[in-house]
Amino acid sequence: MSLVVVGTVAFDDVATPFGKADRIVGGAATYAALAASYFTSGIELVSVVGDDFPTTVLDDLKARGVDLAGLQIKAGEKSFFWAGRYHDNMNQRDTLDTQLNVLAEFDPVLPDSYKDAEFVMLGNLTPSVQMRVIEQLETRPKLIAMDTMNFWMDNTPDALNEVIAKVDMLIINDEEARQLSGEYSLVKAAEKIMAMGPKTLAIKKGEHGALLFQGDEIFFAPALPLAEVFDPTGAGDTFAGGMMGYIAKTGDISFDNLKRAIIYGSAMASFCVEKFGTERMTELDDAAIRARLQRFVDLVRFDV
Amino acid sequence: MSLVVVGTVAFDDVATPFGKADRIVGGAATYAALAASYFTSGIELVSVVGDDFPTTVLDDLKARGVDLAGLQIKAGEKSFFWAGRYHDNMNQRDTLDTQLNVLAEFDPVLPDSYKDAEFVMLGNLTPSVQMRVIEQLETRPKLIAMDTMNFWMDNTPDALNEVIAKVDMLIINDEEARQLSGEYSLVKAAEKIMAMGPKTLAIKKGEHGALLFQGDEIFFAPALPLAEVFDPTGAGDTFAGGMMGYIAKTGDISFDNLKRAIIYGSAMASFCVEKFGTERMTELDDAAIRARLQRFVDLVRFDV
Repeated sequence: MSLVVVGTVAFDDVATPFGKADRIVGGAATYAALAASYFTSGIELVSVVGDDFPTTVLDDLKARGVDLAGLQIKAGEKSFFWAGRYHDNMNQRDTLDTQLNVLAEFDPVLPDSYKDAEFVMLGNLTPSVQMRVIEQLETRPKLIAMDTMNFWMDNTPDALNEVIAKVDMLIINDEEARQLSGEYSLVKAAEKIMAMGPKTLAIKKGEHGALLFQGDEIFFAPALPLAEVFDPTGAGDTFAGGMMGYIAKTGDISFDNLKRAIIYGSAMASFCVEKFGTERMTELDDAAIRARLQRFVDLVRFDV
Repeated sequence: MSLVVVGTVAFDDVATPFGKADRIVGGAATYAALAASYFTSGIELVSVVGDDFPTTVLDDLKARGVDLAGLQIKAGEKSFFWAGRYHDNMNQRDTLDTQLNVLAEFDPVLPDSYKDAEFVMLGNLTPSVQMRVIEQLETRPKLIAMDTMNFWMDNTPDALNEVIAKVDMLIINDEEARQLSGEYSLVKAAEKIMAMGPKTLAIKKGEHGALLFQGDEIFFAPALPLAEVFDPTGAGDTFAGGMMGYIAKTGDISFDNLKRAIIYGSAMASFCVEKFGTERMTELDDAAIRARLQRFVDLVRFDV
């Protein structure tokens, strides 16, 4: 089934204790679309780049079945750019540079063929841009998921809350959930956030796994313990993309299937961090994904 | 089967954002013995208190089937005392006072009836005291587990490493595993620590669950997401005690049974934090424990 993925397509400079990679392709929508492309073919991208963006990368996305009719290419402008450096523990990073470029004036336009999408993933963007996408949908999707970040909680809380009220699932990290709710306990945070609109909440905890809340139900998806994490960039977007790709493939939004989906998302994220940038996300196959999923099964399988 | 539990029996002053409790009964061996007592009756305590320690508490332990022949009561001396205050997030605490008292000269003496114990839990103590216990065992137990802390890594690393080399399972937290191994990745830390002697390693991550390592096997035990944590004191000792109590009950040290045991330990720890001190650990029953275990099953149950 069709999955609209909205978010950044960008260049990143990334420095980790393992090395440095300059001007590699990144962006939330890139990671999310790549992860989802292993599960479903109906991916419809909504984003914007400058004419500095390599057409080979766009061709690769197309080859993976990603529809680029919703990707605006702005002549004479530059693509969004982010530079960051990870600390030794890989759990913290400093942003060294952010150049909005084409993103500063981004007005998303949904091609007509996208307007009846069954599933929508709104990557982290200005809330008003996320809202513009929702407004252009002609039929109510089966599930709209969104990501956001603390910057919008600080600076545009009203616009953010309006979008949150309209989505079915929020996918944010533990710090963001705490800030959004004002609660330290994630159980209490989840209650407050679900009262803001989303029926379902996924809280990402990085190397500590992820929690999925819906009503009184709680599910915990472990993270795979890894010997090496080369580059965490994009892991959260890959998680969301893998999750939404699996939901779009199955068309099933029952809580039992969302549990499976969050495990698929976690598995895809565990691949993402194994190499710099999107590299690992372009070389997987079904056998590798099945084997990784089995490791998740084995990691938490017990009987009492 | 018999389980020797070695560790502190003490008084604690505990302050949390929810309140303050002064001079309550605590100590690693107290928590571990209480937790284990729900699973096995052959618990043999090795510890020391002053004559200021309430006999009613000792009677309660006896009533729960704990053998106190190895508990020394020092006339005219005072029991070990610890005072601490938890931060708002409950994940960090400051030690406000530590009075070793009877612990300063603790020379553990194993009653003859303890010397053929099948299972031994060495709570966090001076490594030389832990070693003195091992030396008095006349038959090799099926499994010796130990806890320790960063203080001994800093101050008596050689003596600590000698004890570690003699035990079957080390149960420490993530910070301690990182310090002991010099590795940030817990997978790499586990490899190094198991090369120091212990065949099995349990790494406690507090609200983020626990990892169990043996050879190439990794198992993850989730922590139950809780709306309120009233007092984390003793949760780690309760975890270890619940785990060892279940192992002693079953007599089974296969990795599959250790997985079950770490879930039992996690379940007991999830009770411990619900009230101040040991209170919650004295009022449980089988039905409550079964129901709690089921919540752990439901928390991570999925199929792919």
